[in-house]
Amino acid sequence: MDYIKNPKKIEEESFRIIESEMGQHSFTERELKIVKRVIHTTADFEYKDLLYIREGAIDAALSLFEKGGITIYADTNMITAGISKKVLEALNCKVVSYVRDEEIAKIAKEKGITRSMAGIEKAASEGVEIFLFGNAPTALYKLKELIEEGKACPKFVVAAPVGFVGAAQSKEDFEKIDIPMITVRGRKGGSTVTTAIVNALLYML
Amino acid sequence: MDYIKNPKKIEEESFRIIESEMGQHSFTERELKIVKRVIHTTADFEYKDLLYIREGAIDAALSLFEKGGITIYADTNMITAGISKKVLEALNCKVVSYVRDEEIAKIAKEKGITRSMAGIEKAASEGVEIFLFGNAPTALYKLKELIEEGKACPKFVVAAPVGFVGAAQSKEDFEKIDIPMITVRGRKGGSTVTTAIVNALLYML
Repeated sequence: MDYIKNPKKIEEESFRIIESEMGQHSFTERELKIVKRVIHTTADFEYKDLLYIREGAIDAALSLFEKGGITIYADTNMITAGISKKVLEALNCKVVSYVRDEEIAKIAKEKGITRSMAGIEKAASEGVEIFLFGNAPTALYKLKELIEEGKACPKFVVAAPVGFVGAAQSKEDFEKIDIPMITVRGRKGGSTVTTAIVNALLYML
Repeated sequence: MDYIKNPKKIEEESFRIIESEMGQHSFTERELKIVKRVIHTTADFEYKDLLYIREGAIDAALSLFEKGGITIYADTNMITAGISKKVLEALNCKVVSYVRDEEIAKIAKEKGITRSMAGIEKAASEGVEIFLFGNAPTALYKLKELIEEGKACPKFVVAAPVGFVGAAQSKEDFEKIDIPMITVRGRKGGSTVTTAIVNALLYML
C-alpha cells in the first residue's frame, strides 16, 4: 500500500495541486487560503469565481475570534460538526445550531415558518454576532429582515445557502446589507463549503 | 417577504427544477431519487455523470435498514450529523464515527496512520455492515485492505471521498471489490454528498 498516510502531507500536496490548476487570479494571500480550502473540500474549481469576500470581512472575522468568548450560530448541525472544535475551544468560542431543537420545531409549526427561520430568531434574540448559512435561504432572508428591523446586528456572516429555490436570490439580496460577509454567489454552497470558509479563517490565527 | 416558507414545497419545487434541467438519463425511478437529492445538495449537475450505483446496491441497503438494529460507520462527524436521525431511530439503527475519539487519535499516532484509518479498523473489528465515506481516501483504502484480509465484510458501502490526493484512485480501486456500493467517480464527493445518498435511501422506506 503506497497511499500517503500523513494527513498533513496529503493536505499540503492537495493545496499545491489546487494552486497549480486554478490558473490566474487576483486574490490576496489570506483570501487565497479561503478559496483553496473551499476547492479542497468540493474538488470544484468553480468556487474560484463564486466566492465573494467583502473587503474587511477577514479582519472582522479574525477580530471576533481573537476577542474570544463568543457564540457562533450555524443553520445546520453539519456545520457545527465540521468546524474545528480544537481551535474554537482554544479561543473560548462555541458554535451552536437550534434547527433540531424540539422547542424550535414547536415555534416554527405555530408560526408557519421553517425551523431554520425560528432558529435565527432565537439566535438573534440572544445577541449572536456571527451567523453561518450553508443550507436555508429562508433563514438568510429572516436574518436580513431582523437586521432591517434593528433586531439583529451581526458583525460577520458567511452566506452559502445552496439550492434551486431562493438560494441565489437570497444571497444577492443579502449582499445589499453593509456588514462584513463572505458569500457564495449563485446556486452553489452548502454546509461543507461554509465549514471550509470558517476553518480557513480559524487556521489563520 | 414573498419567499417560500414551507420546507416541503421548497423541496418539491427544487426537485422539479432539477428534473427539468438535468436532461436525458437512463436512471431507474429509485436511482433518480438518489441522483436528484445529490444535485439538490450540491447544485452541481455533474453528479449526474459521476454517481455509480451498482446493480443490487439499493436493494442491499434497504434490506439492511429494514432489518434494523444495525450500526452504520461514517468517516466524518459531518455525516453522522447530517443523516436523518428521525428515520434512523424509527429503524432502531444508529450512525457513529470514531474519527475524533481520543482513543483513536492515540492509536493513529502510535501506528503512524490517519485517524480515519484507525477508526475504520475499530469499526471493522466491531462487525459494522455499512460504511460511509465522504472524506478520507486513506480510510477507504484501509477498508479495502481489511476486506481482502478477511477482517471486514461490509454489506453496503457509500464511497465518496473528495479531493486531489488519492480520492479518485481510491474509489476506482474500491470498485473492483464485489460488494453492493454507491460511489462518486473522480475527485468530487464529500460529506454532504454521502449524506444525501443515505438520506435518499432512508426516505425510500
